Amino acid sequence: MRIVIALGGNAMTSPDGKAAPEDQAAAIGRAAGPVADLVAAGHEVLVTHGNGPQVGNLLLKNELAAAVVPPVPLDWCGAQTQATIGMLLMNALDLALRERGIGQRSATLVSRTLVDRHDPGFLDPTKPIGRYLNAGEATPLVEHGQRFTEIPGRGWRRVVASPEPRECLDAPAAHAMLAAGYVVVCSGGGGIPTVRREDGTLEGVEAVIDKDLTAALLAETLEAQLLVIATDVHAVVVGWGTPGAEAVGEVSPHRMREIAAEQHFAAGSMGPKVEAVVRFAEHTGGTGVIAALDDLGAAVAGHAGTRVVPSSPSTP
Amino acid sequence: MRIVIALGGNAMTSPDGKAAPEDQAAAIGRAAGPVADLVAAGHEVLVTHGNGPQVGNLLLKNELAAAVVPPVPLDWCGAQTQATIGMLLMNALDLALRERGIGQRSATLVSRTLVDRHDPGFLDPTKPIGRYLNAGEATPLVEHGQRFTEIPGRGWRRVVASPEPRECLDAPAAHAMLAAGYVVVCSGGGGIPTVRREDGTLEGVEAVIDKDLTAALLAETLEAQLLVIATDVHAVVVGWGTPGAEAVGEVSPHRMREIAAEQHFAAGSMGPKVEAVVRFAEHTGGTGVIAALDDLGAAVAGHAGTRVVPSSPSTP
Repeated sequence: MRIVIALGGNAMTSPDGKAAPEDQAAAIGRAAGPVADLVAAGHEVLVTHGNGPQVGNLLLKNELAAAVVPPVPLDWCGAQTQATIGMLLMNALDLALRERGIGQRSATLVSRTLVDRHDPGFLDPTKPIGRYLNAGEATPLVEHGQRFTEIPGRGWRRVVASPEPRECLDAPAAHAMLAAGYVVVCSGGGGIPTVRREDGTLEGVEAVIDKDLTAALLAETLEAQLLVIATDVHAVVVGWGTPGAEAVGEVSPHRMREIAAEQHFAAGSMGPKVEAVVRFAEHTGGTGVIAALDDLGAAVAGHAGTRVVPSSPSTP
Repeated sequence: MRIVIALGGNAMTSPDGKAAPEDQAAAIGRAAGPVADLVAAGHEVLVTHGNGPQVGNLLLKNELAAAVVPPVPLDWCGAQTQATIGMLLMNALDLALRERGIGQRSATLVSRTLVDRHDPGFLDPTKPIGRYLNAGEATPLVEHGQRFTEIPGRGWRRVVASPEPRECLDAPAAHAMLAAGYVVVCSGGGGIPTVRREDGTLEGVEAVIDKDLTAALLAETLEAQLLVIATDVHAVVVGWGTPGAEAVGEVSPHRMREIAAEQHFAAGSMGPKVEAVVRFAEHTGGTGVIAALDDLGAAVAGHAGTRVVPSSPSTP
């Protein structure tokens, strides 16, 4: 089976959220085992991943060094995280594969995601990034074209577009690498946001693409049979924080959309994960799963997580 | 013909050496045309590249932000430049290929180069990196394990190991991508320096690997017929700066070594370029060329640059 796995932020940082180099390396080392187990079981595996804390660190460095070193745009920061996380993943996967007696190797592609330069997100940016600034710090940046939003009591925060992923530009390369027998790392951080100008030129653009929505598009493009969003909770929960809280198991895409409409999942968290697995199931007939990273094997086997299955009789 | 091209720093920065994002994008845009011409002529092309100014910028950011954001090691900085330069190269190559009516696409691999953890370079680091510091700035860094060298009249500069590249760990992936018809970008900045610990674990290590020596190893590993070191001079020159200055054209590896011994080429500049083309010619029987980027087509056709050819009758 061809499987696309999207690793969340918890697979990239220490349990307390720290993202220093050694924290990232240790967390990724832990994530490699469950992925290698799937390869050992004979599956074709592509790994994609988030990059939130890493991009946050790079933006802060940009800012603190701006008087001396020209800052690089947000798309460059995203590219940078693909390489560092990719390197860590390859080192960890190569070891985990070897420990399982598998000669197979991993490869990481620097990868771009095409977005529409007329995406409404560019007119009305809503995705907050970076740290809170005071008005005095934000003003010169606003004059340089950055958009900010005021969060009462906390300060000003930069907002950027979060456009829809339209095409995984490097999916053909990923397909070639999978066909050649590699475990592929691709489209980290949702892919480097890229627009096509009228003259056909491709260029990076400052935006944040949701990594789970890109994972769904990538899984569809690569004709994967299964998409797993690996996160730090065991399943989608209905009535979270109430006495009647209940985990959602197998469910149809239609029913999952109903649940999402009732539950108002957080826009920056469970919302896009649910949207991603539903889209994948609707567009392909494949299964989309949200599960804990530790349950990866059970989730693939159909025994764990919230599983959106097109043929499900729809009772959650 | 399978060709490995190593792009020098001049292909990554503006003519006056600036390396702001827009300078890098413009320079790389200019480099893509000559490369695409070779693809149009039917050659299999792999591109590798330097990253000196880019790594310099990242190290400086690390330093300026160190009180707030955990600095990342030098191998991480190298990885980061592979992704940003790779992204720019792909965007530029995809356009240049399309302008020539070629459907072929490019792909960038995050790529590691294995070095020996007992390489003598680690005991006696000699490669200067980063900016000049005064003694007060250098002292706390020395206490954190960094090595420094004093350059009289200018200050203290960090020195790191420049170990021999032993294995291009991601060359098999590059081979698969070339075989699948891609123009491949790989091993930028000499590759991410990586060591194998006794237990088999791979991990990045703080070092600088010469990008031309890695290019030679990569070309050999991939069984390329031609290695071109593209730089900002038209050829190796004997008697540089003297009235009898003369460009070296076709030459045997043996004669090129004699010339190198006589001329004392700079360790950080022409020295490793010459060593790279000679090694490639000696190890493979293929041709190693040092030429100007603008002469790329002529150099491949045998009409420009210094060409190290094993079958040459050896008169420079």
